[in-house]
Formats: sequence, structure tokens, C-alpha cells
Amino acid sequence: MSELRWDPLRDNWVIMTLGKGRWPQDFIYPREVLTTKACPFCSGNESRTPPEIYAFRPGGSAPNQPGWSVRVIPNRFPALRIEGELESRAEGLYDCMNGIGAHEVIIETAEHGKTLADLTEEQITEVLKIYRGRMLDLRNDSRFRYLFICKNDGVGAASHIPHSHSQVIAVPVLPPLVETELRTSREHYERKQRCLLCDLIKQEQAAGTRVVSDDGNFIVYAPYAAQFPFGLMIAPVKHKHDFTQQSDQQLRLLAGTLRDTLRRIKAVLRDPPFSFTLHSVPPMHLRWGRQDEWARLPDQFHWHIELAPKLTRMTGFEWGSGFNINPTPPEEAAEFLRRADFSFD
Amino acid sequence: MSELRWDPLRDNWVIMTLGKGRWPQDFIYPREVLTTKACPFCSGNESRTPPEIYAFRPGGSAPNQPGWSVRVIPNRFPALRIEGELESRAEGLYDCMNGIGAHEVIIETAEHGKTLADLTEEQITEVLKIYRGRMLDLRNDSRFRYLFICKNDGVGAASHIPHSHSQVIAVPVLPPLVETELRTSREHYERKQRCLLCDLIKQEQAAGTRVVSDDGNFIVYAPYAAQFPFGLMIAPVKHKHDFTQQSDQQLRLLAGTLRDTLRRIKAVLRDPPFSFTLHSVPPMHLRWGRQDEWARLPDQFHWHIELAPKLTRMTGFEWGSGFNINPTPPEEAAEFLRRADFSFD
Repeated sequence: MSELRWDPLRDNWVIMTLGKGRWPQDFIYPREVLTTKACPFCSGNESRTPPEIYAFRPGGSAPNQPGWSVRVIPNRFPALRIEGELESRAEGLYDCMNGIGAHEVIIETAEHGKTLADLTEEQITEVLKIYRGRMLDLRNDSRFRYLFICKNDGVGAASHIPHSHSQVIAVPVLPPLVETELRTSREHYERKQRCLLCDLIKQEQAAGTRVVSDDGNFIVYAPYAAQFPFGLMIAPVKHKHDFTQQSDQQLRLLAGTLRDTLRRIKAVLRDPPFSFTLHSVPPMHLRWGRQDEWARLPDQFHWHIELAPKLTRMTGFEWGSGFNINPTPPEEAAEFLRRADFSFD
Repeated sequence: MSELRWDPLRDNWVIMTLGKGRWPQDFIYPREVLTTKACPFCSGNESRTPPEIYAFRPGGSAPNQPGWSVRVIPNRFPALRIEGELESRAEGLYDCMNGIGAHEVIIETAEHGKTLADLTEEQITEVLKIYRGRMLDLRNDSRFRYLFICKNDGVGAASHIPHSHSQVIAVPVLPPLVETELRTSREHYERKQRCLLCDLIKQEQAAGTRVVSDDGNFIVYAPYAAQFPFGLMIAPVKHKHDFTQQSDQQLRLLAGTLRDTLRRIKAVLRDPPFSFTLHSVPPMHLRWGRQDEWARLPDQFHWHIELAPKLTRMTGFEWGSGFNINPTPPEEAAEFLRRADFSFD
């Protein structure tokens, strides 16, 4: 038995397997053994990375020395580089733009072997403050169109270095999935004068079956048309368009929610690889002639984190069609996560 | 060093790593050991599958008995089922459609352990004829909007049963990537009165650097903005919109091209997992009120196969942004494949 479910935010269908859904024990994935020696992200190995951009040093130690708890460095093998002017040209029918952007690594802890789920709420709060700080800094660069925060944890999520870290990527074009979410949010607002994600959150709260947690500040739910098994949406319950405008207190609350969610996932799925991305409003001063179209963006767009354990691999069907097959209904995923026993510390 | 390259067919950017590109020896992936016993796709185990839909039996043996060389069966765990009426409903802001469709498996050889690259041209021709036959049969069902042929080979491509097979999937909605390719092809045609893929093929032929093979009938090239390392486009050189209208002789030529391409990939990348999908024109009688929009589709759309070895994993960046990072420039991939030494039989 299966259903096709349509997600109004992504404007896309998902094939959802019902009945014989895959449960946590059905997913098998390798978890790499962590080797500490020679890890460039470890405390004491600061000289093996490019000089740091920023570090949170509670004891006030010197840059590029031990004593930090969160550290930001340029990616040694960046997908995009910060140097140069943004240039583009036609290449016959194709188009080409030089790879201008930023690609930074946020090392979330000095301790090798700890994952984000193992950190304290205070440590996660510092990581989130650094997300905010790097976004605020990079949006001063008018060559960029969008700033991405993303995290890959574990080999299954294509993370090459097992030491826990996130990435900040600034790109010179608006990514297509963000473009789609901006469009669907704008179209909904134009029809209803309400934010689409606000409406979706209210619907999920009313249904209840797909909600993992809701403390009144942040809600975590498995969307009705989740693309991936155990895929989750994390969003502020009240409308907020811009992650960088979140106060320290709000980031502390988010850190609590994120920690709780990651610990539920770790318990239910036996420490799976996972990824998340943060979708916030594009910087308003980087509109590239879209003044009219984007004028109401702060009312229309609701920032959120999309998180999913990496339990399945993309098949030719998904790659060639653009829609996903999700073998675990979100109702079941949410129930597993709600009931999670994560008293492991 | 990197470039952003834009693909006019997919209407999307790819971040292409230049300079320090990843070469064949840089990719590591497991290749499962094949166990023969209890394989439901092996000759002699016909009773372990649902009754066959069709089989090519050169010696004229009875259905569901040994003696076949290609065999079509219903998928035992289908993503979509053939029984029932197509129904849809709103689910608040979401939408739901019951999972009506078809999901068949084409077992390409009776011999366990052989991949498509190991089969003879004649055997591959029979497989292609069955693709054509199943598409012609399933397009009689007016509940379907699109028919997909796709193949996943190897664990890295999420194939659960190692015995070589492809899949036919009929879906009740037009997949978004097909929708995009139809749109970009239509828009190009409306401006230029020419087929977009015809123009792209001419440009690739003129450049030459990304062409793997071109025998005048079928061209194989690594697109300028390939999404994946060693990702390839296989297409008829002359404009053809509909795979199901290809003659036996044309399928024999395609079989030769496909075999040659798979053997090059096998030699250069040491037998990697791979996937391909076939994009043909949607059946013209299943237009769902798009008579005007689709009237010129046979002139606009050019059928093709998109093929890629599965060498990388999707990261949070790609999943959350909708654009890919390709670590191997197509110019280098094509050169490796052109020079491939595949005298392994």
C-alpha cells in the first residue's frame, strides 16, 4: 500500500509506503570508527588547518592555539572561493559563472568523538550563535545571493572528517529549492494573506500525529509529505523570517530543542548518519532587482531547519524523476521519536 | 578552483570543481559479493517471484519455468500498485493521491553475477525491446501520466538484489524533472523553432572535448554541466521524441552503444555501482487537458538516457539547496572514458 503525498512548501510529491513501512531496526548503515590521531579538527592540531576566522575561547587563549570550544576555519578544499570578482559568460547554450563564494567549517567541539547530540545545551547555544554571527558577517558581501548552514554527520551523510562540524556556504546564485520555497510561500501569502509555514504548523499541531515535540517556542514535526524516513521540520512556532534576528535567549531555546531531537534520533535509530540545513530569508539588500517581488518576504517566509537521518540511498528513480520514495510514514516516525528512551547519559 | 555551470535542459546550476578534480582512483565504494543461493531472480527459482508478465524464451519453454533469457515480473514490494481507481483528496493544505501505478522488474539475464556490461549485444537488444514493449503496453492505461525505465546496479545505487535487473515504473503524476525538461525544451523551441537537445548535441559535437563516442546514430557525452562525476547523456543523434517508436535495428545500434559505454565505465572506474533512467515523451493521449501546450511536443522533446556511476553521496548541501557539487569536470571524465582499455573479455 502506498500514497502519493503533496508538499505545498516544496511543491512536490512523495511516494509514501504505508502498511509495510520500514521501522528503525530495518535500516542498516555503517558508522565509522573514529580515529583521533592526525585529526585536523582536534585541539592541539590547530596548525593543520588554515588560520581560524573566529573561535569561542571561554578562557581567552590566543588564536590558533588550544583553549577553544567552537572554532571557525576556511574549508581547506572549498567548493567555492572567496577571492575574485563575480563573472559570468555564455558557453554556447550553457552558462558559466566563476566559483565565487565562501566555504567555512565550524568545528563544534574540541573533543573528538562527540557528536552534536552529546554536547550540552550551552555548547550547542554557542554553535548556534556562531551560525548567526557568520551569516551576519557574510551577508555584508554583495557578491553572494544566499547563505547556507548545513551539517553532515557520519559517512552515510558524506562527511569526510568524523570530528563533529558544520559548514557555512555562501553561493552567488539563489539555490533552486530555496527559490521554490520562496515562491510557494509568496503565492500562498498572496492568496491568503498568511504565511504558508504558519498555516502548516497549525495544521500539524491540530493533527498532532506527526508532532515530535512542541514547547510553544519551537515545534519539531515529521511533515505529512516528508521526503525521507524520519525526516523532520524544526521551526519557531511564531512567525519569524530571519534566523539572524533570533536573540541569545531564543537560540538557547533552539539549542534545547535541537539537542532533544538529535538525542531522540540517536536513541531510536542507533546513532545514524544525518544531515540538516537551515533555510532563512535571503538578505534583503541582495535582491538583484527583485524589489517588488520580495517586498513582503518578511511576512511570507518562515525560517526553519530541515533535518533527516541518512537511512536510504538515492536510486535512479529518485534521481531521474525528482520525487522521492519514503518507506516510513511520518506518523510512525513521529511516534517512534516521541516515545524515544534517551536516558543514555 | 571551481565554476558554476548552468544546464539549459535541467534549468539548474552545478558547482564544478576544476583543477583538483577527483580522478577514477579517488573514488572508493563497496561492491557486494554476489550470493547465488536463494536468489529469486535466478533461473530455476521462478516460483519465488510473482507469476511473470512476459519472458523472452528463445527455445519456447513454458511460462514460469527455466529457459528464458529476459523475464518481466511484478515487483513483489511495489512502490505503486496497479489495482484500484485513481483517487485524490485534500488533506488540509496538503494533497493526497492513492498509490496507483505499476512497478515491474525486468530480469536482464538468467545468469547470476553477470552485469548488463557482460551481456552480448544481442542480449542487450532483447532487454531494450522489452523496455519498448512494456512501455507500449502500460501506456494503454489512462490512469498513468508517465512511464519510467530505470536501472540501479550495485549496493551504492540502492539495488537490493544483486542479480542484474531494471525497473519499469508507471506513475500517476508527471515527475518534476520530466516536467522541467518538457518546459525548457518547449521554451527553447518557441524561441528558436529548434529542439534544445538537438542544439546541445551539435554544440557538444563541435566542442568534442566531452564526447565519449559518436557513431552517427547514437552519441554519448558528458554534459558541460553534468550533475555527477562521470555522468553521461546517451541520445539518438537525429531528432527522435519517442523511444517506443525506435525500430528493432535502432535498438540493436543502441544496444551496441550502451554495451560499449558500460564497458568503458566498468574498466575506468573498476565496476562501480551505477544508475540510468530513460526520458521519453509522455504518451500523447495522456495529456490531461494540456492539448495546446503539448501540441508540438514531438518536435520539441528528444528522448535520451541519463546515466551515472554512483561515486558520491548526497550531502546536506545538495539535499537542501537542490544543486550539486561535481568533483570531476566532464572534460576529464570524457577523456578517461574515451581512452578506456576494455579488452577484458
